[in-house]
Amino acid sequence: MIKAGIVGGTGYTGVELLRLLAQHPEVELAAITSRKEAGMAVADMFPSLRGRVSLAFTTPEEAPLKSCDVVFFATPNGVAMKQTRELLDAGVKVIDLAADFRIQDIGEWSKWYGMEHACPDLVAEAVYGLPEINREKIRGARLIANPGCYPTAVQLGFLPLVEAGVVDTTWMVADCKSGVSGAGRKAEIGALYAEASDTFKAYAVPGHRHWPEIRQGLTRMAGFAGEMSVGLTFVPHLTPLIRGIHATLYCKLSKEVDLQALFEARYADEYFVDVLPAKSHPETRSVRASNLCRIAVHRPQGGEGGNNVVVILSVIDNLVKGAAGQAVQNMNLLFGLPENMALTQIPVMP
Amino acid sequence: MIKAGIVGGTGYTGVELLRLLAQHPEVELAAITSRKEAGMAVADMFPSLRGRVSLAFTTPEEAPLKSCDVVFFATPNGVAMKQTRELLDAGVKVIDLAADFRIQDIGEWSKWYGMEHACPDLVAEAVYGLPEINREKIRGARLIANPGCYPTAVQLGFLPLVEAGVVDTTWMVADCKSGVSGAGRKAEIGALYAEASDTFKAYAVPGHRHWPEIRQGLTRMAGFAGEMSVGLTFVPHLTPLIRGIHATLYCKLSKEVDLQALFEARYADEYFVDVLPAKSHPETRSVRASNLCRIAVHRPQGGEGGNNVVVILSVIDNLVKGAAGQAVQNMNLLFGLPENMALTQIPVMP
Amino acid sequence: MIKAGIVGGTGYTGVELLRLLAQHPEVELAAITSRKEAGMAVADMFPSLRGRVSLAFTTPEEAPLKSCDVVFFATPNGVAMKQTRELLDAGVKVIDLAADFRIQDIGEWSKWYGMEHACPDLVAEAVYGLPEINREKIRGARLIANPGCYPTAVQLGFLPLVEAGVVDTTWMVADCKSGVSGAGRKAEIGALYAEASDTFKAYAVPGHRHWPEIRQGLTRMAGFAGEMSVGLTFVPHLTPLIRGIHATLYCKLSKEVDLQALFEARYADEYFVDVLPAKSHPETRSVRASNLCRIAVHRPQGGEGGNNVVVILSVIDNLVKGAAGQAVQNMNLLFGLPENMALTQIPVMP
Amino acid sequence: MIKAGIVGGTGYTGVELLRLLAQHPEVELAAITSRKEAGMAVADMFPSLRGRVSLAFTTPEEAPLKSCDVVFFATPNGVAMKQTRELLDAGVKVIDLAADFRIQDIGEWSKWYGMEHACPDLVAEAVYGLPEINREKIRGARLIANPGCYPTAVQLGFLPLVEAGVVDTTWMVADCKSGVSGAGRKAEIGALYAEASDTFKAYAVPGHRHWPEIRQGLTRMAGFAGEMSVGLTFVPHLTPLIRGIHATLYCKLSKEVDLQALFEARYADEYFVDVLPAKSHPETRSVRASNLCRIAVHRPQGGEGGNNVVVILSVIDNLVKGAAGQAVQNMNLLFGLPENMALTQIPVMP
Repeated sequence: MIKAGIVGGTGYTGVELLRLLAQHPEVELAAITSRKEAGMAVADMFPSLRGRVSLAFTTPEEAPLKSCDVVFFATPNGVAMKQTRELLDAGVKVIDLAADFRIQDIGEWSKWYGMEHACPDLVAEAVYGLPEINREKIRGARLIANPGCYPTAVQLGFLPLVEAGVVDTTWMVADCKSGVSGAGRKAEIGALYAEASDTFKAYAVPGHRHWPEIRQGLTRMAGFAGEMSVGLTFVPHLTPLIRGIHATLYCKLSKEVDLQALFEARYADEYFVDVLPAKSHPETRSVRASNLCRIAVHRPQGGEGGNNVVVILSVIDNLVKGAAGQAVQNMNLLFGLPENMALTQIPVMP
Repeated sequence: MIKAGIVGGTGYTGVELLRLLAQHPEVELAAITSRKEAGMAVADMFPSLRGRVSLAFTTPEEAPLKSCDVVFFATPNGVAMKQTRELLDAGVKVIDLAADFRIQDIGEWSKWYGMEHACPDLVAEAVYGLPEINREKIRGARLIANPGCYPTAVQLGFLPLVEAGVVDTTWMVADCKSGVSGAGRKAEIGALYAEASDTFKAYAVPGHRHWPEIRQGLTRMAGFAGEMSVGLTFVPHLTPLIRGIHATLYCKLSKEVDLQALFEARYADEYFVDVLPAKSHPETRSVRASNLCRIAVHRPQGGEGGNNVVVILSVIDNLVKGAAGQAVQNMNLLFGLPENMALTQIPVMP
Repeated sequence: MIKAGIVGGTGYTGVELLRLLAQHPEVELAAITSRKEAGMAVADMFPSLRGRVSLAFTTPEEAPLKSCDVVFFATPNGVAMKQTRELLDAGVKVIDLAADFRIQDIGEWSKWYGMEHACPDLVAEAVYGLPEINREKIRGARLIANPGCYPTAVQLGFLPLVEAGVVDTTWMVADCKSGVSGAGRKAEIGALYAEASDTFKAYAVPGHRHWPEIRQGLTRMAGFAGEMSVGLTFVPHLTPLIRGIHATLYCKLSKEVDLQALFEARYADEYFVDVLPAKSHPETRSVRASNLCRIAVHRPQGGEGGNNVVVILSVIDNLVKGAAGQAVQNMNLLFGLPENMALTQIPVMP
Repeated sequence: MIKAGIVGGTGYTGVELLRLLAQHPEVELAAITSRKEAGMAVADMFPSLRGRVSLAFTTPEEAPLKSCDVVFFATPNGVAMKQTRELLDAGVKVIDLAADFRIQDIGEWSKWYGMEHACPDLVAEAVYGLPEINREKIRGARLIANPGCYPTAVQLGFLPLVEAGVVDTTWMVADCKSGVSGAGRKAEIGALYAEASDTFKAYAVPGHRHWPEIRQGLTRMAGFAGEMSVGLTFVPHLTPLIRGIHATLYCKLSKEVDLQALFEARYADEYFVDVLPAKSHPETRSVRASNLCRIAVHRPQGGEGGNNVVVILSVIDNLVKGAAGQAVQNMNLLFGLPENMALTQIPVMP
C-alpha cells in the first residue's frame, strides 16, 4: 500500500483527492493537514466522506509526512516550494497541485506569482505532469508539477496540431470557460451563489497566470528554440457550473491535413483522451467527476472560401483531469501502477 | 396611443414584448395571436402578467391586425414573409423579430433557412433594425428586420473598430455564449433543465444561421464592395443562464489607435450602449432585463511583444436588446417617440 | 422630493433599495453610507446602476442623514437601534430593514439576537411594517420595523385564516424555502456557488430568529391575550435560486369555510397580494423583482375522509416584498404617496 | 455473470441503470430496448457512456429478454404489467422501476394511474423493494416493485418512529422537494431550463400518485388492520437541482423517546442509511450520485412549552436510491450478492 499524505486538504482540490484516494485499492491515506481545522474530522467538514474517510485534519508539524510514500500539495501557490526539499530528501515523492514548479523560467514565474522562488533548482528537476506528453519522464521523477486546469484542457486540444507542425503558431486563441469550483473554496464575494449564478463574465483578460504556462507548453510542443515562442491569446471566463472547463480553441492551418485522422491517431492509446466523431460538440457534463478529456475538431463553414480556420473543442472536469485526477494519474505512473487505477468511474450524467 | 399587435405570442420573445409593451405609456395592446392557444387568457399562460395584461390569445384570422399601427412578428422563421405585404398594404408598420428580412442576399438566405423566400422585394425594402447603425433609415421605414441576438452583441462590439478601418478584417473571431432562453420556449430534450444546467457546450460549429447575418453586417460597416467580405469565425455556446449573451471578440489591429477613446467616442450619444472603463469585465447580469449593451475593450498582455490583438467583451440580454427591447426601440423610432421610452428600467441584480 | 438616506448600502438589500429608489419619481437619493467602501462610487460596486446612481459611499459620520426626510437602515442587526433616536429627534423618519424593532418582547429579542437592546422604548413605539395588517398605524408612524422576509410570506399566507378564527392554532407548520440572496452579500463559505448550487438543505431547524417574529404576528392576528400564543413549527431551507421565498403552510381547519372566497375577500383591495384561482401553484419567478405576494390555498385530497387540512402556498421576492420593496411601500405610506408608487414593475419572467 | 436487460433505456432512470450496471463486476448487459431509438448506439445518445457501453438500442421484439436473468423496466407506468408474466414464466426475474406493482389495492391503483390493471395476481405476488423493510422477502422474490423516489425518502424518514409506535399517526406531513430529473427525460415545456431554473414551486397539491404509495407504506409499518390508515399530507415541490430529493417530515410524538438513539439503533446495520449526529442538516449533494439516504432528526425549539413536534430531514439521490440504485440493490439481494456491490461509490461533492 502506498502511504499518501495531503497538505492543505480543506479546498475543493483536497476533497476531490480524498474522494479518489479513498477509493484507490493501493493507497492508504496517512495524513491530511490543515492548520486552521486541526483536530476536526475530515468527514465533519465534508459529509460526503462520512464512513469512508476516518482521518482528522492535523497541523503540518504533527502530520507524519516524511514517512509517507507520496505527498500531495493542495495548497495555495508558494507553500509547496518551501517544504518540498525536505520531503524529497526523506525519500518522499511530491506532487504539487499548485503552480510552484510549473514554469521553468524563474523570472517569468516570479512576475506572475509575485514572489521569489524558494528553490529554482527543484523547478529545473520537476517534471510537468501531463502524462499524454511526459509519460516516461513522469515514471522516473521525484517531483511532479501537476498542470493547471486551463493548461490541461488547452494543451490537449492543441497538441496534435502543434506536434504535427501543421498550424500557424503566430496566433492561437484559447477562449476558456470554467465552473466556479475553479475559484477554490474561499470565502470571496465574487464566488457567492448570488453573484456567480445566472450570469457569465470574462476575467483577467489583461493577463492570467495560466497564460505563461500554456505558452510554455505549446512552445515546447512546437520544438521552438531560444527566445521563440508561440503567439497565444488566452481569455478565461466564469460560467455557472460547479465543475467543468470548456476550451474553445482557434487557429489557422499552415498545411492541409486530415484533422480527424490526426487527432484520432495521436490519442489512439490514451485512456483518458476521447476524440469524438467529426462534427461533435462535447459537453462538460459528459466528463463530470471523471478524469476524461473529450475533444472534437472542426472546420467551420467547411473551410469554404479558402478559409483555413480550425476550431477545437476540449472539455475536462477541472477538479479531476484538471487537478486531483491528473495527480492520481501521475501517482499511478510514479509507483508503477496501471495508469487508470481508481480513475475509471463513469461520468455522472445527468 | 399606438395600437400594437403581436403575432405568435407564446414564446419568450412574445412574453418579453408583452412585459415591455404593457408598461409603455403610448402603447395599447390590441391583439396577440396563437393558433394553438386561442381563447386562453395570456395571463393564464404567463402568471407574471396577471392584472397587467387582460388580452386572450386569438387566432391570426380573428385578430384585428390590419387595424393596428404596428405588428410585431414573434414567430418562427418563414411566417412573417407570408403576412407582411398584406399588413404593409393596409398601412401597418411591421417589425419582424425572426430572420425573414435580415439577409439581403436571397440565395444565401434560402441556403441557411432552407426555404424559398416569399417576397424578395420586401427584403430589399426592409431596414435592418440596429439603431446604433441605421437610426435614420429606421425612422422612415415601414418594415424592420429586427436583428438576431448574437448579431446584435457581435456587431456592436466590432463596430467602432471596423468603421474606423483599424482592424484586420481577414480574420475576426466571435466566441459567443448564450443563455438557454435563446433556444426558445419549445419542448425539446436539449433545452431541459436536467440537460442544460451544470454543463457547457458549443453548438453549430460547422455553421450557424447568425454567421451570414453577422458577416453581412461587418462587411457593410467595412464599406466593402462587390464580392469582398470580412473573414469571420463564429462559434455559439449554450451556457446555464436564463437570459444573457456574452460575446468575446478577437481581432488584430491593422493600425495603432487609442481603443478606449475610439469606443467612448463612437458610443457617446448612444443611450443603450455603455462603454466600460479600461480593464473592465462586463457581466451578463449587469444588463439583465434591460435594453443595454455593455462593452469593454482590451489589449491582452498589454500588447507586449508587438502583439496587436484586441479583445472586446460585449454583453446584452438576449430577450431585450437581443429581441423584444430592440424591437420596442425600433418602434419608438418608427413613431417619433423618445428612443428609450419604456426601456429605462434598471437591470435586475442580483 | 423626499430626501432619502441609506445606512449600509453594500448588501443585497441596499442595492435593491437603490434600484427601486433611483426609479422613484418623488425620491432624491441624498446619501448612502459604508464605512468600508467610503469614497467608492456606488456604480463601481454595482455596475447595474451605472448612469443611474451617481452617489459614492460615504462614512456614516459624513453622510447628511439628519437632513434627510427618511433614512433606511440596511445594516446588520444591532446597528439601527443605536442611531435611530438621534435621527427621530432630528425629525427624520426611520425604516429599519433589520430586526431591531420587530419583536415587542425585549427579553425574547435579546435571547434570539444575543445582545442587549439599546432603546426598548423605541421598540414600543415602532410600528411593524406589514401594510396589509398595519396600514393606518404605518401612516402615522415615525419608526417602522420592516418585517423579515420569511415572516412576510408566512403571515400573509396564514392571515385570512387566523383573522377569521377558522384554524386550529395549536399547531401550524411553515415549511419555507429561500433563495441564496437571503443569506446576504457576505463572504461566507456556505453561500458560495460551488456550495449552494445543485443542492438543497434545511437549516436552523432547532431554532431560527424569524420564529419568534412569525409567532408574535400570528398570535396578534389571533387576538390572543396574555401568555397565550399560537403553536408554530418553522423550518427554513436554502434552495438554489437567487431571489425568492416559497412558503408552504400547513394547518387544520377548526371550522368549515369557503377558503377561496375567504382569501379573495381578505385581499380584494390589496394591490400587492394576488390570490390565485383554486388549484394553482404559484412559482417564485412569477413575482421576481416585484413587490407582489401570490397566494394559493388548497385542500389536499379534496378533504377526503374528514381530512380538514389546509395547505397554503405563498411566494414573494425576498429582496422586494421581503425587504426593500416593502420598505418603499412603507415609505410611500409614511409620506402620503400612492402606496404602489415606483413599485409597479411587472415581474421578470423568464 | 448475471445477464441483465433493460426495457426502456432512454430516460434518466435508464441511463443511470446503465452507469451502475456497466460498473458492476457480476453483471453483463445483454439488451436495452427502445422502440423509437432502435439501432442507435447507446453511447451516441449518452456520450458519458462512450467506451463503456457498446450496446445499441433494440426493439423489444428483437431483444433477448427471455434469456436474461433479470429484466429492469425503466418504462412509463402501464408497460411492465403487460410483459412481466411472460418473463416470469420464462424464469426471468423482474424489477419494475415504474409504479405497476407498488399499490396492493387495485382499485386505488386504477384511480390514481387512470387505467385497468393487467395482472392483479402479480401485484399480490410482487414484493415492495425497500430493502430496509423487506429484505428477506426480496431475497426470495421473482418480481420486485421498486419504490418511488418520494416514497423512499419519506418512508425511511418516518420508519423508526412509526415502527416504534411513538408517533401520532393521525397527521403526518411530508413536505418534499425534488430535482428536475425526477420529471423524466421528456420534452415538456415545464421542465425546460428557462422554466425550471431560478424558480421554485409546489405541484400536485390536490393529489399526487406517490401519496397512496407512501400512505400504504406507513400504514403497514404502523401495523394497522382493516380500513385504518395513517393521516398523511404530502406536498411535492420542484426545485432547481438536477438530482436530489429532500423530504422534510413533520409529526407529533405520542410518547417521549430518545429520538437520536431510536434512529441510530434502527439503522445501525443498514449500509445505505446514514443517521447524522443530532442537530445536523443533510444536504442533497452529500448523497449525489450515490445510493445513500442520510437522515437527521430534530426537536424544534428543543421541545419547549410541551411542544412534542418532531422534524425529520431525509435526503436521497432520486435517480439512485430513489430509482436505479435501489433497483441494483434489489438485484444484488435477488441473486445472493453482497447488497452493496457496485453501489459503494463516494458521493460527488462539490
